[in-house]
Amino acid sequence: MSSNVISLDSINENIVKMEYAVRGPIPARAVELIGELKSGAKKPFNEVIRANIGDCHMMGERPNTFIRQVLSGCLNPEAAYNDPNLADDVKERIRLLLSYCGGRSVGSYSDSAGIEIVRRHVAEYIEERDGFPSNWRNIVLTSGASEGVKCLFALLNSKSSEGLPTGIMVPIPQYPLYSATISELGMYQISYYLNETNEWALDINELERALRESTSKCIPKAIVVINPGNPTGSVLTQENIAQIIKFARENNLLIVADEVYQHNIWKKDASFFSFKRVMNQIGVKLELASLMSASKGYMGECGVRGGYMELDNFDDQVKAIFMKQISARLCSPLIGQCAIDCVVRPPKEGDPSYEQYWNERKQVLASLKDRAELTNHTLNALPGIKSNYVAGAMYAFPCIELPPKAIAAAKAIGQEPDFFYVKQLLEETGICGTWFWIWSNSWYFSFSHDNLTTT
Amino acid sequence: MSSNVISLDSINENIVKMEYAVRGPIPARAVELIGELKSGAKKPFNEVIRANIGDCHMMGERPNTFIRQVLSGCLNPEAAYNDPNLADDVKERIRLLLSYCGGRSVGSYSDSAGIEIVRRHVAEYIEERDGFPSNWRNIVLTSGASEGVKCLFALLNSKSSEGLPTGIMVPIPQYPLYSATISELGMYQISYYLNETNEWALDINELERALRESTSKCIPKAIVVINPGNPTGSVLTQENIAQIIKFARENNLLIVADEVYQHNIWKKDASFFSFKRVMNQIGVKLELASLMSASKGYMGECGVRGGYMELDNFDDQVKAIFMKQISARLCSPLIGQCAIDCVVRPPKEGDPSYEQYWNERKQVLASLKDRAELTNHTLNALPGIKSNYVAGAMYAFPCIELPPKAIAAAKAIGQEPDFFYVKQLLEETGICGTWFWIWSNSWYFSFSHDNLTTT
Repeated sequence: MSSNVISLDSINENIVKMEYAVRGPIPARAVELIGELKSGAKKPFNEVIRANIGDCHMMGERPNTFIRQVLSGCLNPEAAYNDPNLADDVKERIRLLLSYCGGRSVGSYSDSAGIEIVRRHVAEYIEERDGFPSNWRNIVLTSGASEGVKCLFALLNSKSSEGLPTGIMVPIPQYPLYSATISELGMYQISYYLNETNEWALDINELERALRESTSKCIPKAIVVINPGNPTGSVLTQENIAQIIKFARENNLLIVADEVYQHNIWKKDASFFSFKRVMNQIGVKLELASLMSASKGYMGECGVRGGYMELDNFDDQVKAIFMKQISARLCSPLIGQCAIDCVVRPPKEGDPSYEQYWNERKQVLASLKDRAELTNHTLNALPGIKSNYVAGAMYAFPCIELPPKAIAAAKAIGQEPDFFYVKQLLEETGICGTWFWIWSNSWYFSFSHDNLTTT
Repeated sequence: MSSNVISLDSINENIVKMEYAVRGPIPARAVELIGELKSGAKKPFNEVIRANIGDCHMMGERPNTFIRQVLSGCLNPEAAYNDPNLADDVKERIRLLLSYCGGRSVGSYSDSAGIEIVRRHVAEYIEERDGFPSNWRNIVLTSGASEGVKCLFALLNSKSSEGLPTGIMVPIPQYPLYSATISELGMYQISYYLNETNEWALDINELERALRESTSKCIPKAIVVINPGNPTGSVLTQENIAQIIKFARENNLLIVADEVYQHNIWKKDASFFSFKRVMNQIGVKLELASLMSASKGYMGECGVRGGYMELDNFDDQVKAIFMKQISARLCSPLIGQCAIDCVVRPPKEGDPSYEQYWNERKQVLASLKDRAELTNHTLNALPGIKSNYVAGAMYAFPCIELPPKAIAAAKAIGQEPDFFYVKQLLEETGICGTWFWIWSNSWYFSFSHDNLTTT
């Protein structure tokens, strides 16, 4: 018996059970392998390719100069103002942001929902993007998109008078943040399967099936949609989004639209349509929480932990409770908030930083697009592997037919075949995939293509 | 009836009920008053003094130059390396920190527990401070101290087989983060009262009373101690800490030591003793979570959201679960992590930044000390108000005798007398206090003295 006060059987069982594959045993083994390579161990590969998470800077993508000059200057404004090499629009942005910070310092707390001017800029960005009004008071700046999801789910989490948990519809395959958060909070996950044969689109019949089968197990309150898709790489059409909105309206569901890859569209003729835009186009007024982050797109600024959530058509009292709820964490990091400002308000034509900013942005996006196409070609050229076209985001989710012998070999050592495959892939090639998944006798694993080099 | 899917009666009732006074109606009214003053409204005061929260930079404290040069340089390293005005130790620190970041960028994710070198530096700092070993693998870098508390409480949160909630012992008066988190998670708060007549020390009889009375209501798992005290301004003696440790051992409690004010000691002959140090001195081995932050001390860098938690003597399996739990939020902001690095590893004698760093640090601490003494004198010189000596931290928690007429006036408009007093104080003088509290017919409110000016 442990002499410890806090032991495995006395802590939160939801957290004990929770899985978070993006950071699970495979990535942990990858870290070990990196260490072994460093110590001179001989491996069938020279470097570990971390395809378990989209982390662009880690893989060598260069930060955007404008963003970094602004963030750096916000921390040391006197030096920035006196720097003759720094463009005027950079200095103006620093001045503007700091004028909205307490004591003109990013070292002060902001309002819990974020710095006012940044929230206003986010609303303007959404208006310009969608052509429909956005109220800055509905914008909440968060520590990456993850924090917004966690707070929102906690808010929705209640039990019915019969003791039924809150149900959240989540796509399969999905980004594991959703399943992990649902699991941690003891909520009920209503899994709906994306349509692999139709480019991972959402099939309304499947949504209806999933919802129907969840009756008596939970009180469904929300549907999560990830567009562009993580880990599927799909981009939803306007029509598909309209169908989903109608489904949500008919079934009284809040829509949680994870739109963090809105800048990452690779497929010719595909476009990003926000849920907000389509909702307004078809004249539906429904509660919508849409998420954006500074971590993806062309920015890749994961480490600054910047994100925002727009709460559209929420009940005013519920919104007030949400604002109270987030006040206990005081505020999201101010540098992350300033990063979001740069993302939603890039230099305009005529600004001194305009050309460099857009050149860098185009270059990063073009390179990511090249790598998406390389992924498309390479995966589909391999025997036994097929992948939908990577139309957006930064991921492929290929289907792998495992030969019977591989399945037998996995079983022989007590591993699931999907885990076995991903583990072998790592040990033999140095490629660290994750979110492996078994479905209808096929095995899948997600593969983040920002980690490829095209050279 | 609301047409909304999500309404007040369908959301998490724990969050609906949760209170967080630091950001409640009084601070909200203060923000309105600032707006009214700006629009030219006539008030009995010219400015609002925000004494509701310790937010030094907001009140004009200047950031520490060394810290800001490092943080700024981490975001724009090329410019920093080429800057002839930047000292070599600043450049070296930037190089060192970035060499531990993926792709040498603070835009990449760190490990969930934080950047390895920063965790190592934190452990070295603790060892040097206390004279006892610290293992860097027990250090978790968090988004301010608040995030550590929230994650730890969530981990502890479970129901017994009889359905009893987890109980956490919390001092009264306390910092409202604790009550808010307990309330949000549906845990049970075991309130113990600090001893006002003994400089707000912890009275072991009172701890025993509180624990005894909680039997049958919860399963007690942890005791929170805030030292130096927030909002009491007390500094615990070594003896008192030893008593508390023995109490925790006898009653199988994890100790949560909120030690974020460890640099803020004002009283002559008072010293900061960490729980870790005293525990080792008296030879007790007990689970201890100790919290530190970059937001207070002489740094005041609230907005970067930097903090750490040391998990001492935890069961290995529990620690592994905790590490999994925090992985879903990916990592804390890297700039906050770098700020913690500067805090735990300031320039050493002989380093080019040494003198300026220490001068600035001394100056800020001396000024805070002056303001603590000003608070001591002024409050106790006012009729009907008495305050314990502000020995540390940044707060006073004065006791106010309200005259019967004031109590009657409050009741007449349906307000509690404490709320009434703090509201009138704000409306008539512009001073925004908070955490008002009624006890034994006396009223208290907390008052953050970093907001005073001594001129």
